[in-house]
Amino acid sequence: MVASEVRALFAVAARPEIVSLAGGMPNVSALPMDAVAAMMADLVTERGSVALQYGSAQGDPSLRETICTVMAEEGIDAHPDDVVVTVGSQQALDLVARVFLDPGDTVVTEGPTYVTALGTFAAYQARAVHVDMDELGVLPEALAETFARLERAGRKAKLFYTVPTFQNPAGVTLAAERRLRVLEVCRRAGVLVLEDNPYGLLHLEGEPMRALRADAPADVVYLGSFSKTLAPGLRVGWALAPSAVRDKLVLAAESAMLSHSAFAQLAVDRYLRTQPWQEQLKAFREMYRERRDAMLNALQEHMPAGVSWTRPGGGFFVWVTLPEGLDSKAMLPRAVQNRVAYVPGTGFYADGAGQRAMRLSYCYPPPERIAEGVRTLAGVIRGELELWETFGTTAHPHSRGPQTPGPDHS
Amino acid sequence: MVASEVRALFAVAARPEIVSLAGGMPNVSALPMDAVAAMMADLVTERGSVALQYGSAQGDPSLRETICTVMAEEGIDAHPDDVVVTVGSQQALDLVARVFLDPGDTVVTEGPTYVTALGTFAAYQARAVHVDMDELGVLPEALAETFARLERAGRKAKLFYTVPTFQNPAGVTLAAERRLRVLEVCRRAGVLVLEDNPYGLLHLEGEPMRALRADAPADVVYLGSFSKTLAPGLRVGWALAPSAVRDKLVLAAESAMLSHSAFAQLAVDRYLRTQPWQEQLKAFREMYRERRDAMLNALQEHMPAGVSWTRPGGGFFVWVTLPEGLDSKAMLPRAVQNRVAYVPGTGFYADGAGQRAMRLSYCYPPPERIAEGVRTLAGVIRGELELWETFGTTAHPHSRGPQTPGPDHS
Repeated sequence: MVASEVRALFAVAARPEIVSLAGGMPNVSALPMDAVAAMMADLVTERGSVALQYGSAQGDPSLRETICTVMAEEGIDAHPDDVVVTVGSQQALDLVARVFLDPGDTVVTEGPTYVTALGTFAAYQARAVHVDMDELGVLPEALAETFARLERAGRKAKLFYTVPTFQNPAGVTLAAERRLRVLEVCRRAGVLVLEDNPYGLLHLEGEPMRALRADAPADVVYLGSFSKTLAPGLRVGWALAPSAVRDKLVLAAESAMLSHSAFAQLAVDRYLRTQPWQEQLKAFREMYRERRDAMLNALQEHMPAGVSWTRPGGGFFVWVTLPEGLDSKAMLPRAVQNRVAYVPGTGFYADGAGQRAMRLSYCYPPPERIAEGVRTLAGVIRGELELWETFGTTAHPHSRGPQTPGPDHS
Repeated sequence: MVASEVRALFAVAARPEIVSLAGGMPNVSALPMDAVAAMMADLVTERGSVALQYGSAQGDPSLRETICTVMAEEGIDAHPDDVVVTVGSQQALDLVARVFLDPGDTVVTEGPTYVTALGTFAAYQARAVHVDMDELGVLPEALAETFARLERAGRKAKLFYTVPTFQNPAGVTLAAERRLRVLEVCRRAGVLVLEDNPYGLLHLEGEPMRALRADAPADVVYLGSFSKTLAPGLRVGWALAPSAVRDKLVLAAESAMLSHSAFAQLAVDRYLRTQPWQEQLKAFREMYRERRDAMLNALQEHMPAGVSWTRPGGGFFVWVTLPEGLDSKAMLPRAVQNRVAYVPGTGFYADGAGQRAMRLSYCYPPPERIAEGVRTLAGVIRGELELWETFGTTAHPHSRGPQTPGPDHS
């Protein structure tokens, strides 16, 4: 159901008249296409018989080295032997779930959390339990209490799944001063940390955050991705894991696909070794900073009183909370009718929470479209608030229709 | 264990002094690399913002159309809506297993069968039961009896997994006159057919075989791949499934990886739409025909009496059966010591059968190396036979060592 909601949203968001603040697609058009094209051609000419051939289940050794240099930016000291290359970090998540989760197991996650991770845990018949966050990320004491409560109930958590940096969807980052405490809480509870970090190098101010993995190599499985820092169309992500876990992930990867695309792996490796990727990342950051600022400024300018939102230091997402009485999912068809799309908050919880919340993304539309979308959205919210204040309900014809927008709402 | 054996073999086979008749790697060096390089560059230049972006979980619509035209070569009339693009057909196999198999389930397969499929079924805790083949493929009556026996034992088969055409590893093809009977047997038993067909268009004589799927659209899930007809390094395969199954496969694909590489998919689609792929396939067939003939001629010339083998009409593999008393796995270290490698037959059975068998592949080494490898292998077999005839055992120091060759045997 969650997956089909996302699909319906993507279908709507793809229509050009809609300002989509729903998707999480990076703006790949900002890549130097001519340089990438030349690089791809060189790869085939110079190394075609390797790039077009089967590779190893663990992934290309040279790329695994390069991945270690990328992770070093976040304070991680890792060996290429402990890296497993995957089809985006989504496959890494799936393989970790395959290795660790049995039906009925419990995974603790932030609330809200990444929608597709919830789908993966559900696919393995595991239950997700949320822990609250504030503007500094997950609350360590609430995490400890959750672990203790689950253990008392005979449902000891198997994993703590966290997106600590520029979280999807909340746009919140676990504060540096809380990180060691969170690791300590997990270690004491004997719960493995699954750190999902696709946005870490898209920090819009200062220096990159130090990854959780940097301070707890034996207790963390770290998931990384080139989908946001380079291009999702190559589907290159990875897991960095303690060696016993890594061995299981390699076997699982072999069973899942024999091996990942050698071409995609060598292309990423070549890009990172031959192109000025640090400069390109800087350009990405400037672009996304401008877009984030456009969104935050528009929210400030247009949103009615009672609406609140997070202020992300990086990544792609702002989490907006509506005033009492409003329902972001019921409101979505009206928003789409007015040509703006977002993702309702309930999709990011396993337990039906998030009715008053929505995720807005600033990654894909240009700044002026973002401003236009937020202004439109503010108008929709204002309309809903008037209904609520006048009638004590926001029920209108659309809320009786499908929960996600169909073609008739455009 | 099976996976690690294969890995150990690949490690050995990669050493240049060994004639490897073990691997299943296509000879991608025969591709027109300059044309492929130019095509890749054009793809980025002209469609970079799509090729480098996320795609849909089901796969690129244009490629799914093209896949239908490829399948038409084997008599299949399919709609692109029923195709799901996967990371090689291995991922399709994994997704089918994920959708259909529960722990304790039974899958019926040919004996011998594709080693990695056995690994996949085992990963989902399903049991594989083999049905015998002769030189015309699986025996329909034996298949019917196996289904009946399993049903009586309360273990009704969930799937019949078959590689009907140019089978890996046996090099045997299910005869045209048996195909409808096999479909009928499966239909009566209510068992879904999983037709794995990576080699169908690599027929070395006459016309392509008509796929099982062509005559039973509702009863067959068909798995295809570009790994052998184009290049495994792009990892593009697919499943064609009845729509109810297809929907489940799309959800499983989304959970497994969000979406496959748009770049890889558009590259394959562009290759098929802009390059003379039929001509290229013809060139591949000529190359593999020459290699197959080199292998069959060398077997005929060098093998001692009592050794028998199959005569494949396509694909990559010959299945060799040794005389009574010999053990292909125990013999492998001595073969590698003599600089030839193969895959012992036991890996292709779930039940320990295949001790006297081995798989030889003719896809990768050039003809003269194939002939050299077979001649060497014949010498090793002759040596083993002498030991057996003299002492009634072939035990020698190596057979007490590791079952798969280590670096010390080179």
